[in-house]
Amino acid sequence: MNIAVLGTGAVGRTIGSKLIERGHTVTLGSRTRDSDKALEWIRSTGGQGRQGTFADAAAAGDVVFNCTAGAASLQALELAGPDNLRGKIMLELANPLDFSRGMPPTLTVCNDDSLAEQIQRAFPDTKVVKTLNTVNHLVMVEPERVPGDHIVYVAGNDASARAQVADWLHEWFGWKQSSIIDVGDITAARGLEMLLPHWVRLMVTLGTPMFNFTVAR
Amino acid sequence: MNIAVLGTGAVGRTIGSKLIERGHTVTLGSRTRDSDKALEWIRSTGGQGRQGTFADAAAAGDVVFNCTAGAASLQALELAGPDNLRGKIMLELANPLDFSRGMPPTLTVCNDDSLAEQIQRAFPDTKVVKTLNTVNHLVMVEPERVPGDHIVYVAGNDASARAQVADWLHEWFGWKQSSIIDVGDITAARGLEMLLPHWVRLMVTLGTPMFNFTVAR
Repeated sequence: MNIAVLGTGAVGRTIGSKLIERGHTVTLGSRTRDSDKALEWIRSTGGQGRQGTFADAAAAGDVVFNCTAGAASLQALELAGPDNLRGKIMLELANPLDFSRGMPPTLTVCNDDSLAEQIQRAFPDTKVVKTLNTVNHLVMVEPERVPGDHIVYVAGNDASARAQVADWLHEWFGWKQSSIIDVGDITAARGLEMLLPHWVRLMVTLGTPMFNFTVAR
Repeated sequence: MNIAVLGTGAVGRTIGSKLIERGHTVTLGSRTRDSDKALEWIRSTGGQGRQGTFADAAAAGDVVFNCTAGAASLQALELAGPDNLRGKIMLELANPLDFSRGMPPTLTVCNDDSLAEQIQRAFPDTKVVKTLNTVNHLVMVEPERVPGDHIVYVAGNDASARAQVADWLHEWFGWKQSSIIDVGDITAARGLEMLLPHWVRLMVTLGTPMFNFTVAR
C-alpha cells in the first residue's frame, strides 16, 4: 500500500520504518523537500523510503499518518492540502503538548475540544481516527516491548474507518485485536489526549517511557 | 480514629461505612444538620455513624475525606472552615466534573490547574493528598471487586502525608502497597483529574463502572 507519514520526528520515522518492513511504500512528509532528518531516515531504510513535502507525501499516500508535533499539526495538514487528504483515512497520533512553560506540560487544546476534533472539522472529507497517541513510539510498532495485555484505543466518527484502523494496528504493528478498544466517535479523543499529562508524570515517576495503560475488569 | 467524611453522596456514604467497619468513629458532614441522606446512612450503620454540618464533621475528625461533588468542593470546605481543617491530612477524592452541558462531561478546572491545587491554595495549612478519584466508589473500599493488580495514586506536596495515606489505603480499604503509585507533588492531580473524561467514556464503552486502570511495564 502507498502510505504517507507526515512528520520526521521519532514517531514518524519509527512508524515509517516499520511500514517499510511490512512491504509498504512509504513517503515521509516534511515542511521542505530534502529535510536532513528525512534523508537520514531514507538511508536507514537502505534507500527504500521516500520523502517530500507534506503535500507530496499526502498526494502519494492512500492512507495518511499524522505524526507531526501536535502544536504544529493543523498548519502542517493545511500544507498537505485538503485535496490530497480527501476521502482518505488519517491515523491521527499527535498530542497537543506544550512544554514551553516547563514541566508539567500543558495542552494547547483540551476539555471541550481536542486536536483530533479540530483536524476533523478542518478536513471534513477525511476520516480522522485518533489512535496510538497514548503509547511511546517504540511501543506503537512493537507492543511486545511492554509485557502483558496493554491497551490502545481508536476514536473517530466513521465506524468502518475505526474497524479498518484496528485491523491495520493488528496487521502492521502486532497489536492483539483484544487489546484494541473502540471508544466511539471523535469526541473520545478529548479523553485520550487528556491522558497525556498523567502519562508524562508517570514516565517521570517510573523513570521509563516503556509502559502502557491496561484496563482491569 | 475520629474521621470526618465530607459529602453524603455515594462516595461519602461508602467510605464512611467501610471506616466504621474498621472500628473508626465517623462523622458524615453535609450542608445542613439532619440531612435525609446522612440520617438514612446512620440507620444503615446500625446507629454507629454520626452526622453534622461540614464544620461539625471537620471539627470532629483527626483526618478529613473530601467526598463532596467537585464543582461544590471549595464552597463546602469553606463552610467546614480553615480552623477545623488546619494541620490535618485531607484525602481529596473529588472530581471537578460538569455534566450540565451533557455527555461527554467537561471539567470545571484542568490543564494548568486542578481542583486539588485550588483546595491546597485555599487551605495552605492542610495537607491535601489527591487519591482514589480514578476509581468507582465501590472499588475504592473493595479493590478486589476488580480482578488483577490495578492501580491507585497518591499526589500531594507533603511526602510523609502521601506515605501515611498510602498506609491507610492499605489498612482501611485493602489496597496492596504495590498497587499504590506515589506520583509526587500536588500538580500531579492535574493528570489524575484529567483521566476522568476518558474514564467516563470507558464506562460507557465497557458498560460498567467496575474497572480500573493498570500500568503494564
